[in-house]
Amino acid sequence: MSLDGSQVLAIAEMSAAARKRASKAYPGIKVTADVSDVITSAEIDAIAVVTPVWTHYELAKAALHNGKHVFVEKPFTANGAQGEELIALAQQKNLKIMVDHTFLFTGAVKKICQLLEEGTLGKLYYYDSTRVNLGLFQHDINVLWDLAPHDLSIMDHLIKASPEAVVATGQKHLNGHEDVAFMTLYFPEKVIAHINVNWLSPVKVRTTLIGGEKRMLVWNDLEADEKVKVYDKGVNITNREGVYELLVNYRSGDMWAPQLEQIEALRQELSYFVDCISSGQDPLNDGCAGLRVVKMLEAANESLNQRGSLVYL
Amino acid sequence: MSLDGSQVLAIAEMSAAARKRASKAYPGIKVTADVSDVITSAEIDAIAVVTPVWTHYELAKAALHNGKHVFVEKPFTANGAQGEELIALAQQKNLKIMVDHTFLFTGAVKKICQLLEEGTLGKLYYYDSTRVNLGLFQHDINVLWDLAPHDLSIMDHLIKASPEAVVATGQKHLNGHEDVAFMTLYFPEKVIAHINVNWLSPVKVRTTLIGGEKRMLVWNDLEADEKVKVYDKGVNITNREGVYELLVNYRSGDMWAPQLEQIEALRQELSYFVDCISSGQDPLNDGCAGLRVVKMLEAANESLNQRGSLVYL
Amino acid sequence: MSLDGSQVLAIAEMSAAARKRASKAYPGIKVTADVSDVITSAEIDAIAVVTPVWTHYELAKAALHNGKHVFVEKPFTANGAQGEELIALAQQKNLKIMVDHTFLFTGAVKKICQLLEEGTLGKLYYYDSTRVNLGLFQHDINVLWDLAPHDLSIMDHLIKASPEAVVATGQKHLNGHEDVAFMTLYFPEKVIAHINVNWLSPVKVRTTLIGGEKRMLVWNDLEADEKVKVYDKGVNITNREGVYELLVNYRSGDMWAPQLEQIEALRQELSYFVDCISSGQDPLNDGCAGLRVVKMLEAANESLNQRGSLVYL
Amino acid sequence: MSLDGSQVLAIAEMSAAARKRASKAYPGIKVTADVSDVITSAEIDAIAVVTPVWTHYELAKAALHNGKHVFVEKPFTANGAQGEELIALAQQKNLKIMVDHTFLFTGAVKKICQLLEEGTLGKLYYYDSTRVNLGLFQHDINVLWDLAPHDLSIMDHLIKASPEAVVATGQKHLNGHEDVAFMTLYFPEKVIAHINVNWLSPVKVRTTLIGGEKRMLVWNDLEADEKVKVYDKGVNITNREGVYELLVNYRSGDMWAPQLEQIEALRQELSYFVDCISSGQDPLNDGCAGLRVVKMLEAANESLNQRGSLVYL
Repeated sequence: MSLDGSQVLAIAEMSAAARKRASKAYPGIKVTADVSDVITSAEIDAIAVVTPVWTHYELAKAALHNGKHVFVEKPFTANGAQGEELIALAQQKNLKIMVDHTFLFTGAVKKICQLLEEGTLGKLYYYDSTRVNLGLFQHDINVLWDLAPHDLSIMDHLIKASPEAVVATGQKHLNGHEDVAFMTLYFPEKVIAHINVNWLSPVKVRTTLIGGEKRMLVWNDLEADEKVKVYDKGVNITNREGVYELLVNYRSGDMWAPQLEQIEALRQELSYFVDCISSGQDPLNDGCAGLRVVKMLEAANESLNQRGSLVYL
Repeated sequence: MSLDGSQVLAIAEMSAAARKRASKAYPGIKVTADVSDVITSAEIDAIAVVTPVWTHYELAKAALHNGKHVFVEKPFTANGAQGEELIALAQQKNLKIMVDHTFLFTGAVKKICQLLEEGTLGKLYYYDSTRVNLGLFQHDINVLWDLAPHDLSIMDHLIKASPEAVVATGQKHLNGHEDVAFMTLYFPEKVIAHINVNWLSPVKVRTTLIGGEKRMLVWNDLEADEKVKVYDKGVNITNREGVYELLVNYRSGDMWAPQLEQIEALRQELSYFVDCISSGQDPLNDGCAGLRVVKMLEAANESLNQRGSLVYL
Repeated sequence: MSLDGSQVLAIAEMSAAARKRASKAYPGIKVTADVSDVITSAEIDAIAVVTPVWTHYELAKAALHNGKHVFVEKPFTANGAQGEELIALAQQKNLKIMVDHTFLFTGAVKKICQLLEEGTLGKLYYYDSTRVNLGLFQHDINVLWDLAPHDLSIMDHLIKASPEAVVATGQKHLNGHEDVAFMTLYFPEKVIAHINVNWLSPVKVRTTLIGGEKRMLVWNDLEADEKVKVYDKGVNITNREGVYELLVNYRSGDMWAPQLEQIEALRQELSYFVDCISSGQDPLNDGCAGLRVVKMLEAANESLNQRGSLVYL
Repeated sequence: MSLDGSQVLAIAEMSAAARKRASKAYPGIKVTADVSDVITSAEIDAIAVVTPVWTHYELAKAALHNGKHVFVEKPFTANGAQGEELIALAQQKNLKIMVDHTFLFTGAVKKICQLLEEGTLGKLYYYDSTRVNLGLFQHDINVLWDLAPHDLSIMDHLIKASPEAVVATGQKHLNGHEDVAFMTLYFPEKVIAHINVNWLSPVKVRTTLIGGEKRMLVWNDLEADEKVKVYDKGVNITNREGVYELLVNYRSGDMWAPQLEQIEALRQELSYFVDCISSGQDPLNDGCAGLRVVKMLEAANESLNQRGSLVYL
């Protein structure tokens, strides 16, 4: 991927087959098996860490120590302590960390964010995401760490409040990691969020329901067009007098699918990374955003291990 | 509704408007405001209790005391103690209780039951139901008590094991009852079930994913045809040696939508009730089945009140 | 069906089984095997002719001769001459004819009509309907006469112009009548309409695309909600200079599903019939509307018999 | 695209911008503005003609004259005479022509072909394709020549018979070419085919219904999975005695979505081209197949120009 203001100089990759493919596809780029070739290179300003989660901390730390800005695959780190240490190190070295929360750069999330900020949905009631498919199984993390970071980073961006507590349930059927899991997050002001992730679903689903006091929306990321549908529907409490009285009124109106910005989210995210490095601006998906997600995942794992206790954040 | 071997003789109804409509629609049937007219009538053998949950116990108890068989709307009773008392009373009086678990009589649930019993799905991994729509709000119960009995009675019928523990989370936004709720049930042998119920969804969803070792299925009850789709998909663990090795293989094959029995479930259920009374057979959806569902709901409420603790059954 | 201002007094029906069902369902209504009992009854003001097409003319004529207003199932008559004679007779007797073009009374068609009249779609380009399913086979008419009257009556209402010419193609596979057929209608001002009807389709489809200069819409009558979707899409010709130049620009914007009036169309149509009789107003779906549809069907049959020649109207 | 047994040596392209992109993307390949550089190159054995239809004949002829095998974009030529001349020339020179009927190499068409050949569908009744979307407008051909070649080449492959006659209707709204068109093809033995193509549709549709005596199928090419659904549905004529008797019985059974071969069709087609050149085998999508499609298009244009007359082939 070529971006204005930057150039890919080198790729470090442990798999010989993948190195061969990379050399063939990008003849002008250095491909090495030794990550330190990249991390210590004087020519390189920034490094993208796209490796298993348990390696993020060591690689990012080495990169920061060598004065490189780092772009890190989600989830940011394997635990909160690692994330905090990296943030402190980056700050001390005056370097940028960006965590790959790609969805924040999609047309759908940008539109949903706008609808919330403009008050189109009214006060938020709930955020409910289903993200299921058959595999891809990870061997070092469970399905929550694999799939939920997408939703957690989107929520973190949209809800603009920290969850108070987390409950997670799930089950391990195959390889010692939960392959089916459910997570509830209690946010302030009665906002509730729920995530359903599953590596054992026969069908792929990427659907999020967002309910507000004024309007509600459905975001189906698998639709080619009309990914976001806004419903002019809601409920009004009109009468609380007697148990036999009608307590609620339903409002129902038009449905509306706003046109979304057609963008390649990853390209835009990386371009933003280059901009943040140039301008000194802190990215919205910086290490702190990455750390907030990791802390939610840590709390979820703690809850999962107790089969669903309430874990405060 | 006319059924062979039975006749509707009387309707007791508190609402004057509803009594008027009933009298007009069924000129030959007695319509009364006084429920004791029906409960004490010497001509009547069986009574259907289709009233708010909190009234089930008193009405069914009176009916049983007066020697009537009872058909009770789901959920059976407002708590387990009431259910146990009714079961004991019916047994003592040699009367039948049937709880209206209508879904057990649908073509979809019958087919799913058959697929599980024949081993088509293999060992069960999970049962995951989403049952959301805009209202209808109930004023005496929360969304779990309103919508989850459908799923709990189906699970009770299909899984043929009792859940060991329950976790429920949710939130009250409008009228003091949870309008959004999520429930996880831990069954023996790593079977996990999950229910997502919501009175505040802009779209109606009635979708259940069922995953087994050999095959998986999707039941979409809102499809006109092809409600149940069986996927010849699954996962095999083939290699556990190194962390960089592929641990799982995916199997993928045909999809198949079996033709379902075209039946009017409620009519068939009531016909079965008449048969059970005649033959003395205990219905599969008897008081005990109703009680099992009520106990799951009680445990869910206890968990909900603690924002999601693990409650053992 | 009970309507204000009218009362059903008698039903004439040739099938003994159907008479039995009718007597049971409507105990207060006279049920007879002899249609003349109804047609000559002094008590009766209006008659609904819901019989095979080839009987419409005789029955409606007898009813008009006896001073009854008539409501006739679509298509109005088996040929244009019959329709003209009935219209003349009704006029002479000062009686009303209404043809059962039920779709004109649905929320969807009302909304589409409004969108066209208000100019939301801009100048009309095309109307393209697909109306296919498995049966129900008719034994006296082909699939065009069975299914296309719906579309033709809607077009007649929406387009507000008469087609200039018709082309129809099709094939008879089973019982001597076309079971698959396609019909093109050329309207003035480059408006083209197309109808695809099929008794041999494995799936039911009821989808109409309507394209205009400014906007386009899709009407899917099988959707529970959001039957009509309006797309802010179109094409602008911006440059016609050279063959290698881009000639057209696409516009793309939001999609919008207007809330539709929730009405029972047949009830509203019959209520309108009663109103027209009382007020003396000519219904929009009067004999002339019925005749226009019959003439399109006659032209289509003529074209079909020549395997698709152009037949002028 | 790299294929075993072949190598891309040169690209001729009139657009300077496209030449620049090609040079950047494929540094090792010669890029030229002069097509004769390619056509006369001694190093080149085969040429792919991917240009507007009206240029196919001249370019392919020059290539054949220079001893090159040719792969030609569909439709093969602008008229039948050109196609016949190219076929004769290739035969004389012992060179291969392949026309880019890519769909024949997709998993969906292969599976449908197998279902027909094995008799799963029974005797074919109809083939009905809808292929509509917003643009891309062509400036040298109408929508039939742009979109229908896909369907015509698939039909040609599946039906294994030549159409007897063609009827086409349509309308020109924007740039002097039909942008909406409908085509019926009469095949022997009561097989009827129909194609609906439209450059002015707000939604993209790629759906084909295929009805047979025993079973019917729906091919929706826009589905990610389950593109082909086979319905165990049909009609039996059981009784032809009286007009009031039931003439037809419907059969209804399971639906089944066979797993399709996951292949990159274009890559497989080109690989097959290389194989045919090596082995001397005539490709199934040879010049004769291309010519058959062109003749259907010519007939369709003739019919279109008369607003839908029957044109014999």
